[in-house]
Amino acid sequence: MTQPEMTFAGSPLDRADALRSDAQALAALQAQGGRLLALQGLEPVVDGGLVWQSLDAAPEGAELIFLGLDAEGQGHFVAAPRPEDASTAPASFDLWSALSGLSHQEVAIYGAARALAGWHGRHRFCARCGSPTRIAKGGWQRDCISEACATPHFPRTDPVVIMTVEHEGRLLLGRQPRFPAGRYSALAGFIEPGETFEEAVAREIREEAGVTVRDVRYVASQPWPFPSSLMIAGHAYADDPALNIDTNELEDARWFTREQVAEAMEARARGEDGVAFSAPSPRAIAWHLLDRWLRAA
Amino acid sequence: MTQPEMTFAGSPLDRADALRSDAQALAALQAQGGRLLALQGLEPVVDGGLVWQSLDAAPEGAELIFLGLDAEGQGHFVAAPRPEDASTAPASFDLWSALSGLSHQEVAIYGAARALAGWHGRHRFCARCGSPTRIAKGGWQRDCISEACATPHFPRTDPVVIMTVEHEGRLLLGRQPRFPAGRYSALAGFIEPGETFEEAVAREIREEAGVTVRDVRYVASQPWPFPSSLMIAGHAYADDPALNIDTNELEDARWFTREQVAEAMEARARGEDGVAFSAPSPRAIAWHLLDRWLRAA
Ligand SMILES: [Zn+2]
Ligand SMILES: [Zn+2]
Repeated sequence: MTQPEMTFAGSPLDRADALRSDAQALAALQAQGGRLLALQGLEPVVDGGLVWQSLDAAPEGAELIFLGLDAEGQGHFVAAPRPEDASTAPASFDLWSALSGLSHQEVAIYGAARALAGWHGRHRFCARCGSPTRIAKGGWQRDCISEACATPHFPRTDPVVIMTVEHEGRLLLGRQPRFPAGRYSALAGFIEPGETFEEAVAREIREEAGVTVRDVRYVASQPWPFPSSLMIAGHAYADDPALNIDTNELEDARWFTREQVAEAMEARARGEDGVAFSAPSPRAIAWHLLDRWLRAA
Repeated sequence: MTQPEMTFAGSPLDRADALRSDAQALAALQAQGGRLLALQGLEPVVDGGLVWQSLDAAPEGAELIFLGLDAEGQGHFVAAPRPEDASTAPASFDLWSALSGLSHQEVAIYGAARALAGWHGRHRFCARCGSPTRIAKGGWQRDCISEACATPHFPRTDPVVIMTVEHEGRLLLGRQPRFPAGRYSALAGFIEPGETFEEAVAREIREEAGVTVRDVRYVASQPWPFPSSLMIAGHAYADDPALNIDTNELEDARWFTREQVAEAMEARARGEDGVAFSAPSPRAIAWHLLDRWLRAA
């Protein structure tokens, strides 16, 4: 079984951040035949791969966001969408189907473009004063047009903790009401102002499952552009397995044995549901948490 | 030498997130004598400790943000500041002096309150449509008042990578122009949409110092409320020490020997500058990176 890579990671584009502040260089990149990522709303247009158009294909007056340079030095761009097209919806079944027709690197390019383009569509106005904003620094900033305010705004990335908890060789997994039938996955929640990664992990598990944890370890991270999360995955240990489930957050949470997790992951590799539960998709960092736990044994 | 704790971590308050959606419970907490954190702008009022007032001390019509419950179940609040008081400035010398008069736990309470209050002051308007917003869920959300838009907005936490790089027993540190004279510290930068923690570490070191790294490891994290960062600290290894410094970002970057780092950290413990460089403050996670590197040897 080959090891799936982390979905949305591994973009081959050079972000070339020095160019963002260089309006002349950006204009030259565009004049030299920049490539425009084709989107429908925020969904990818897929035709054997991502579809790249000439910059002329952008709507009149569209704001162009600089994604980066390819190995040949060609500039890659995406147009800021209309506000009504800047959805914050989770990924749909159709989106995952479309992504399955792309290479790993194309999925990463698309993910960054989606997060960035969506942010522009949802940030047409200054949160500080309500005035309109305009694109700046090749799309890595928006500036309030009010001279009195002139606040710069930056693309948002929201850190989320996602974690497995271990007790005597069993793993705590939970299910949210929106999950497919039978699916259990790692618990998760946003990191809040004023807490560390480790504190957020402990708080979320206490809140959602009533379990106290120790020895929180970082495992891996993943960008997740629905709309703009950074998933930070951890593993922790519990001494007391008693559960007190917050039914506002979770429909259920359970401890699964190593055999149950292994069987569910083997079933997932065949595209099937496991006996005890249905394992998360390899697209999700939760899959990597389960996979690493099994391989660490 | 006692080991300094991570500044801004370790708040003793229970965030009691279930109460945030319970307007009746929040009103009851306020009626039962909630405590209001005294601030001047976003700066703490310190009088042998943080100053807590009765909720009556809040300006007429002020929005009250629920920080959490203490061990006695008493509600702690902070008022959303006026927009002109919601500064995004870095911490001043005066602020650090004020914080030195607080306990570790008080500093953590203050840090969360500052990040959250500042966000409210800077988010009076909906970034999607420009309409005013109003406080919701005890201050853990703001809602656009336009019925057609009604977008919810959430407090922002910006993940930042900060990292040391090692090559043959030497450590790469840099200095930004705004640093005090002689200060060198770990390189840092915001994590961008579409990248993992590990990718952001590698990109920042390549951009700022021209160094390629491998084997990026997570070390620790720290909330940093100036205005709303989450510092995520790592350590990486370089095979080629040649530097190519981006002088727009860094004034200088150098490789320091273990002896130089140890001497600078010992000098810092005495409140002095080291011989080769001046080490970062124990308030900063960069100090912990240097300290752990020395202790891991
Ligand atoms: Zn403004
Ligand atoms: Zn709105």
